[in-house]
Amino acid sequence: MSKLPNIPTSIFSVMSQLANAHGAINLSQGFPNFPVDERLLQISERLLRENVHQYTPMAGLPSLLEKIAALTAKNYQRKVNTASELLITAGATQGIYTVINTLVNQGDEVIILDPSYDSYEPSVLVAGGKPVRISLNDDYSPNFNRIEAGITAKTKLIILNNPHNPTGRIWTESEFDALESLLDKHPQVVLLSDEVYEYISFAHAHISANSRPKLIDKTIIASSFGKSLHVTGWKVGYLIAPEKIMNEIKKVHQFLVFSVNSFSQHVISEYLDVVDFAAVANMYVRKRDLFQNLLKDSRFELLPCEGTYFQVVNYKQISTKNDMDFAKELITTHGVASIPISVFYKDAIDKQMLRFCFAKTDETLIAAAEKLRKI
Amino acid sequence: MSKLPNIPTSIFSVMSQLANAHGAINLSQGFPNFPVDERLLQISERLLRENVHQYTPMAGLPSLLEKIAALTAKNYQRKVNTASELLITAGATQGIYTVINTLVNQGDEVIILDPSYDSYEPSVLVAGGKPVRISLNDDYSPNFNRIEAGITAKTKLIILNNPHNPTGRIWTESEFDALESLLDKHPQVVLLSDEVYEYISFAHAHISANSRPKLIDKTIIASSFGKSLHVTGWKVGYLIAPEKIMNEIKKVHQFLVFSVNSFSQHVISEYLDVVDFAAVANMYVRKRDLFQNLLKDSRFELLPCEGTYFQVVNYKQISTKNDMDFAKELITTHGVASIPISVFYKDAIDKQMLRFCFAKTDETLIAAAEKLRKI
Ligand SMILES: CSCCC(=O)C(=O)O
Ligand SMILES: CSCCC(=O)C(=O)O
Repeated sequence: MSKLPNIPTSIFSVMSQLANAHGAINLSQGFPNFPVDERLLQISERLLRENVHQYTPMAGLPSLLEKIAALTAKNYQRKVNTASELLITAGATQGIYTVINTLVNQGDEVIILDPSYDSYEPSVLVAGGKPVRISLNDDYSPNFNRIEAGITAKTKLIILNNPHNPTGRIWTESEFDALESLLDKHPQVVLLSDEVYEYISFAHAHISANSRPKLIDKTIIASSFGKSLHVTGWKVGYLIAPEKIMNEIKKVHQFLVFSVNSFSQHVISEYLDVVDFAAVANMYVRKRDLFQNLLKDSRFELLPCEGTYFQVVNYKQISTKNDMDFAKELITTHGVASIPISVFYKDAIDKQMLRFCFAKTDETLIAAAEKLRKI
Repeated sequence: MSKLPNIPTSIFSVMSQLANAHGAINLSQGFPNFPVDERLLQISERLLRENVHQYTPMAGLPSLLEKIAALTAKNYQRKVNTASELLITAGATQGIYTVINTLVNQGDEVIILDPSYDSYEPSVLVAGGKPVRISLNDDYSPNFNRIEAGITAKTKLIILNNPHNPTGRIWTESEFDALESLLDKHPQVVLLSDEVYEYISFAHAHISANSRPKLIDKTIIASSFGKSLHVTGWKVGYLIAPEKIMNEIKKVHQFLVFSVNSFSQHVISEYLDVVDFAAVANMYVRKRDLFQNLLKDSRFELLPCEGTYFQVVNYKQISTKNDMDFAKELITTHGVASIPISVFYKDAIDKQMLRFCFAKTDETLIAAAEKLRKI
């Protein structure tokens, strides 16, 4: 009996493999193709010969926990107790899976806002829970009437992703106000806020659930350093949760993975003293503008991108194919790999849209846009 | 509702913390306190500036998969298909958790041989399964009558750990013969063979389930590089499983963690070209002999140690306290940390035994033994 009978190989594996097989420019899976910061490499070099290769404590390297708490206090005015409310995870994906598999029991319902990142639903299914998928509005803002209609006595979790992958939309203060009112009415519901792109927010400063005092006693934040430090392969993320919930998460985490790559934790801990997250956001807004400018007289229609390093386009002027077929054609015929947006919807609803990752060198973006403009 | 209502913090966290708090010599949690191989550091240094910091493919870095397959062919005469039968995991713990949570459904039973590593039972409980704990014989050999009596129509998995943590016992060919006959009679039962100490076997060469052709189509091997390469913090392990089972494991793995620390995978892949596992085993047999010799005229009674880097002792001549209390006294009064063996038994049966980790510098072992001899 399969736990995930209908779940195929992750789209990110499929598209990256196809891109490699055809020598296409890979704007599908989200990862940078430029070198990491020289200062991070120098810290790595220096720490290599120190005592950084054995298990860290189960909840994470203490100095890294302190740095995350300091960032959370500075950016979101939230004081996090490092001993009881923080946990380092092997990437945000492991954090999110662990939260879901800690809190969701057989038959519990989890509200997922579509389009949504592809790991949420399978994680709920492994736990024996029921994913309840609610469409966002056409502009990807939350539709609170639909969300409220989806809440039942069995609803355990709502998963929010802000800045939003794949659409690049970011939440506003008034949306958080509405969410707070909604959750007030349904005190059994816990919020899981996936904020892995917290440092890649352009339209306005990122609003973390951490910065909403009324939310924090019922919210779990999942974040990651892979995106903001350009080390997606390192797989170092973290969770922030109220102590009572965190105690349960840690019980599962300690037997699921126990601890996270020690060397990477040591390096990130030191690098957080020097990294400038504003510069990261500036670099990405520049890359977004470059990519958008390069495509503005193409036959692709650009959607707004307020955050993340993903640009969504529709190709209705080019093809009537569904987005999976068109994404494959784009690889095989035009040499550019993207992600079809349908994979982020329940029942793979096709909107004839694609997602391009612009976390690439300018040369790569220029080369890709040249191919895309010819279509 | 808690998934693990009765599960406390892992004993390894508890004892390492207590050791640190009291400045005790830490022979509790299993990790080396000597530097890693200079050649491994040199490879790390060189690779740092290469393209090793982004996601590897979901199943693992292809070159690392090839190296593992080559080792498995050489050591155990088993040909592993790298594309369909191998998976890199964030340590063996994550591999074991993922296997259990892929295969075990609500109500399925899992046979665990006591004393047993502490992560097995909670992993089964999270999956909604029922751990069925069967005692090993007094010499820690398997008791096949008891095991067979524990098998029901609901038995899904048997977990074997060889070389065995905490007792240091290793399985013989005739025990594998008996296991094969048993599993022949119960074709629904899958074997999960935890072989993380495969390269630390003294009494005779390690017998892997990989080397038993009749087992491999129903066996999942879990192993790790943390122990044999002295990098427990890196959290790089692997699973070998028949394709049909591996397909299901990968479905869960890709949403549980997606991929494993890329830098560590690259380094290990290159280091496997030069590492001499026989030298690792030789170093540890020497450390075992040193530690045993230092303790042989103490009031601790030494049990046999055929593999792993753990030495079990009983202290019946010293104290009538239970092992948890005695282990704490040993830290606070005598300055040496160990693991009480009761934590590895269902219902914490007390045998007045402790486990010492001898993966330490000779100086550390000498200093610890000096304290222990005084008791
Ligand atoms: C885990 S691989 C996918 C990376 C990513 O987050 C994305 O491309 O959306
Ligand atoms: C995961 S921490 C425990 C290390 C270990 O395997 C042991 O000490 O038995």
